[in-house]
Amino acid sequence: MLAIDQRDSLRNGMATAAGTTADRISDEALIKAKRAIVKTLAPYASAVLIDPVYGYPQCVTDLPPRVGLLLSQEETGYVAGGASEKERRTRLLENWSVEQAQRLGADAVKLLLYYRPDGSVEMRRQQEKLVADVGHACVQAEMPFLLELVAYPLTEGGADSLAYAQKKPALVIRSAEEFSKPVYGVDILKLEFPADLKWTAEYAGGAFDGKPRQSAYRATEVETFCRQLNQAAGIPWVILSAGVNIEEFLVQVDMATAAGASGFLCGRAIWKDAIPLYPDLVKMETWLRTQGGHNFARAKAHAGLALPWPQHRAFAGDSQP
Amino acid sequence: MLAIDQRDSLRNGMATAAGTTADRISDEALIKAKRAIVKTLAPYASAVLIDPVYGYPQCVTDLPPRVGLLLSQEETGYVAGGASEKERRTRLLENWSVEQAQRLGADAVKLLLYYRPDGSVEMRRQQEKLVADVGHACVQAEMPFLLELVAYPLTEGGADSLAYAQKKPALVIRSAEEFSKPVYGVDILKLEFPADLKWTAEYAGGAFDGKPRQSAYRATEVETFCRQLNQAAGIPWVILSAGVNIEEFLVQVDMATAAGASGFLCGRAIWKDAIPLYPDLVKMETWLRTQGGHNFARAKAHAGLALPWPQHRAFAGDSQP
Repeated sequence: MLAIDQRDSLRNGMATAAGTTADRISDEALIKAKRAIVKTLAPYASAVLIDPVYGYPQCVTDLPPRVGLLLSQEETGYVAGGASEKERRTRLLENWSVEQAQRLGADAVKLLLYYRPDGSVEMRRQQEKLVADVGHACVQAEMPFLLELVAYPLTEGGADSLAYAQKKPALVIRSAEEFSKPVYGVDILKLEFPADLKWTAEYAGGAFDGKPRQSAYRATEVETFCRQLNQAAGIPWVILSAGVNIEEFLVQVDMATAAGASGFLCGRAIWKDAIPLYPDLVKMETWLRTQGGHNFARAKAHAGLALPWPQHRAFAGDSQP
Repeated sequence: MLAIDQRDSLRNGMATAAGTTADRISDEALIKAKRAIVKTLAPYASAVLIDPVYGYPQCVTDLPPRVGLLLSQEETGYVAGGASEKERRTRLLENWSVEQAQRLGADAVKLLLYYRPDGSVEMRRQQEKLVADVGHACVQAEMPFLLELVAYPLTEGGADSLAYAQKKPALVIRSAEEFSKPVYGVDILKLEFPADLKWTAEYAGGAFDGKPRQSAYRATEVETFCRQLNQAAGIPWVILSAGVNIEEFLVQVDMATAAGASGFLCGRAIWKDAIPLYPDLVKMETWLRTQGGHNFARAKAHAGLALPWPQHRAFAGDSQP
C-alpha cells in the first residue's frame, strides 16, 4: 500500500527544495506534488492512503478503479504535553469523521497515533481513549480500521541515538500488544520496524547513509525482535517506512515479512527522492515514473512472501506460519 | 537469466549435504537436482544456461517454450599451469562444438574463461586464443556468444582477502576491456561484480555473512568501479553471482544496473540454499518454489532499470545512458 497522506513533512521537504520556508509553499503546490505521486505510483498499489485535507479531492480521480482508498483521521503533527512537555498528543481532524470517510468511498480509515507505552499515565489514557473512540465509530460503521503506531524519544537524546535504538524494540512491541486488544476495534496495525538497522552491528558501517554508528544489537537479535513483534501483534500488521532510504526499507521488508508481517504501507521510502526536484514538476514526474516505480516494484518483490491477511492466526482456527 | 550449468561445485555441495564425498554423488542424483531447479525456476527466466553433460538431455523438456537456451562450451574446472602453477587454463568440452549446440537448439553458447589480465604472457595467449577460436566458430554459425570472465587470486592470499578485494576492480575492468575487442567475436559479457562488497566500508560490519572485515574501499568508490566497468565493456554485459548470498547479490544488481549492466545471469545466489536440503528432493522443491522463486523475483525487480541490450552504445549511433 502507498502512503501519500503526508502534510507538514511534505510541505517542509518542498520548501527546502525550493530554498524557501514552509509557509511559502501554497496548498495548490502541495496538491500538485501529491497528485504527481498518486498518478505515477498508485497503479503499483493495492490501496492508497490519502489525507482528506489536500489529497482526497484532487487525487481520488487519479486512483485506478481496483486500488483501495484509505483516508486519514488525524490532524497533522501533534500537541506537546504531559508532565515533561515532551509527550505527544494526537488530535483528530476537525469537521471530519469515520462516517464522512465512508460516504466519500473510503475502504478503510487510518489513524496515526503517537505512543510511548512507558509514557505518563495521563497521556497514555488520552491516546488510548482516542483509539477506542475511533474504533467504536468504525465498528458502528462497519469500516475497517488501520492504526499506525509511532513512538518517539523522550529522554533518549534524539531519534538517531544509541539509547533510542536500544529502546525501540520494546516500544514497538509493547505498543503493538496494547492495541491488539479487541477493545480498540483495530483491524490492521501499521507498525514501525522494531529496531534501527542503522545501529545494527552488521550495517553500522554506514550501509544505508554512509554514517558509521555504534552497535546496539546484531542482525540475529533484530530477527528475534521481529518475531516477538509478530507474537505481540494479535492482528495482521504491515510495516511503515518512517522515511528511511529505500535500501534500508527493503531489508526491513525482508525481515518483517519473514517474521509474519502482511506487507507494507509506505510513502517516503518510495517517493521521497522526488521532492528535492521540486518545483520542477516535469522532472519530479519523470523520476517518479522511473526510479519511483522501480522502488515500488522492488518493495513489492521483497514483500512477495508476506502473510496473506486471511491466513493470520486471528482468523485461523489452528495451524500457524 | 538463470544458470544451472554448475557441475563440480553442485556435486560438492550435494556431497556435503549428504555427509559423503563427491565421488559418491551419482550422475543421476546430480541430474535430479538440476531438474528440480530448472522445473521450479525456469518460468522466472528469460533464458536458462545449461551444461550439455548432465543438464541438457534431462532438463530441456522442462524449459517453458518462451525461455531461451544457453549451452556451456567448457569442461568443468580448470588445469593449473603457468610458471607459478597457480594460473588457470580453461579446457573445452570434448566431443562438443558450437555447431552441435546449435543443432540441439541453443539460442547462444557460453564459455567460462579464467583470466588474469596481469598473468603470464603464455597463459594469457592460450586463454585469448581459446576465446578467439570459439568466437570464430560462433561467427561462422551465426550463433550468439556469451563470454563469462572469472578472475582468481595468484599472490593475494585467497579470494576472501583484503589484498584480493583491492585487486579485484582492476582485474574485472581490464578483462572486460580485453574481450570487448571485436577480434574475439563476443556478443555479451558475463562479468563478476567489480569489487567485493564484503570488504566495502559500509558493509564491512558483516552485513552479508556476519563476519566483520577491514575496509578496502567505500561504496561511492564501488559505484565508480561499476561505471568504469561499463566504460570498459564495449558490448552489453550482465553480472554473475559467484555464489554470494542473495542479499549481497541484490545490492550488486542495484549498483551494476545503475552503471549500465543489462541484467544478470545468476545461479547460486538464487538457488544455493536448496542444496543443503539434499537428498530430500521434496524439501528441495518446496524451498525452490517458495524461497527460490522469491529470490528470483527480487533479483528481477532489482534489475528493473537494467539497460535493454538494443540500447547499448554498441548498437546506437549516438546518445548514451
